[in-house]
Amino acid sequence: MSDIVLHNYYRSSTSYRVRIALEMKGLSYDYVPHHLRHGEHLEPAYLAVNPQGLVPALVLDDGTLLTQSLAIIEYLDDIHPAPPLLPKDALGRARVRMLAQMIACDIHPVNNLRVLTSLRALFGAGDQDITNWFRHWVNEGFQPLEKILVSSPQTGTFCHGEAPGIADICLAAQITSNARFGVDLTPYPTIARINDACMAVPAFQKAAPEKQIDAE
Amino acid sequence: MSDIVLHNYYRSSTSYRVRIALEMKGLSYDYVPHHLRHGEHLEPAYLAVNPQGLVPALVLDDGTLLTQSLAIIEYLDDIHPAPPLLPKDALGRARVRMLAQMIACDIHPVNNLRVLTSLRALFGAGDQDITNWFRHWVNEGFQPLEKILVSSPQTGTFCHGEAPGIADICLAAQITSNARFGVDLTPYPTIARINDACMAVPAFQKAAPEKQIDAE
Repeated sequence: MSDIVLHNYYRSSTSYRVRIALEMKGLSYDYVPHHLRHGEHLEPAYLAVNPQGLVPALVLDDGTLLTQSLAIIEYLDDIHPAPPLLPKDALGRARVRMLAQMIACDIHPVNNLRVLTSLRALFGAGDQDITNWFRHWVNEGFQPLEKILVSSPQTGTFCHGEAPGIADICLAAQITSNARFGVDLTPYPTIARINDACMAVPAFQKAAPEKQIDAE
Repeated sequence: MSDIVLHNYYRSSTSYRVRIALEMKGLSYDYVPHHLRHGEHLEPAYLAVNPQGLVPALVLDDGTLLTQSLAIIEYLDDIHPAPPLLPKDALGRARVRMLAQMIACDIHPVNNLRVLTSLRALFGAGDQDITNWFRHWVNEGFQPLEKILVSSPQTGTFCHGEAPGIADICLAAQITSNARFGVDLTPYPTIARINDACMAVPAFQKAAPEKQIDAE
């Protein structure tokens, strides 16, 4: 699997998720950047690869297209089981997927670039409106996430025990995006502590937006 | 597992997803309705059960709380493998999760009731604005979904082969929500055909919003 291609954008948090998983699994890949703010993901050449025109997209060596960051990460975990990104027990998997989806379904999509752009275009939202919108949905998601994490004996150094997994990947990528909108993590000490633990892991560091070839 | 409790709302499409999975697995459950439009999901008694204040939430017989519809459905599939809701092969699972997440991450969250309510409150969006917003994000997601489905030999009577799975569950639940906003399915003949196949399956019929005790 040395000829896999990752179509992505350094600042896209879903791209960051997949890069972390690839680094954790020790997989090399070709990095193809698409500048979202310049609309490069909507050019015909990329739409021919990925009709959805979104990043990330992973193209396997046989040409198979995989999109959706969590589906890609679970695939990588399926075919390269070490180190595991999900617990071995069904309840543990459910808990980690729940924590991941609290971010991936309830926070990130509503704060995605294309949604923020639509708020400006359709409703005349200004910079402060956009910042308030972004912070609102992060806080709506982080308040219950903090409660669940702080109250569960299954929470360890990471979201679930002592090794990083899919939930941590989503958490760290979300917090990296948060920084652009000045989200205060003070009310979320457990989330902040787990994020610190994640950012001490080499895979999270190597995959970070500012380390990518298209970083500005 | 006869004492499981599903906190849900008849018209919530994520609740509908979980109900379909429970019916497909032949599992009985206690149905606890929370009227989202009356704010019942934000009352202290429910927040004590689920800090996120969202539906669906599944409470297992030992009191374990599971939220996030896809995490719940994968858990049900893990512990009750028949009939399977995901393919046995890794690439098949990746494809089905990708199709499911194209709806669950890229369409549904942006069109969720709480987001539509925020558009009205923050930006003065009116009924036509809301309808346009809803249709826009469905079309943004359904165009590539149709392309992927129509061009893949793995698409069968259902999204992946001849039996319904997680992707079909998301597709049918989305289309049920679409009806309230008059989304035209004419441009999506494959999606429409698969939805028809889903709605012929008894589990999809029994779980339908209008069959629930809190239906209006």
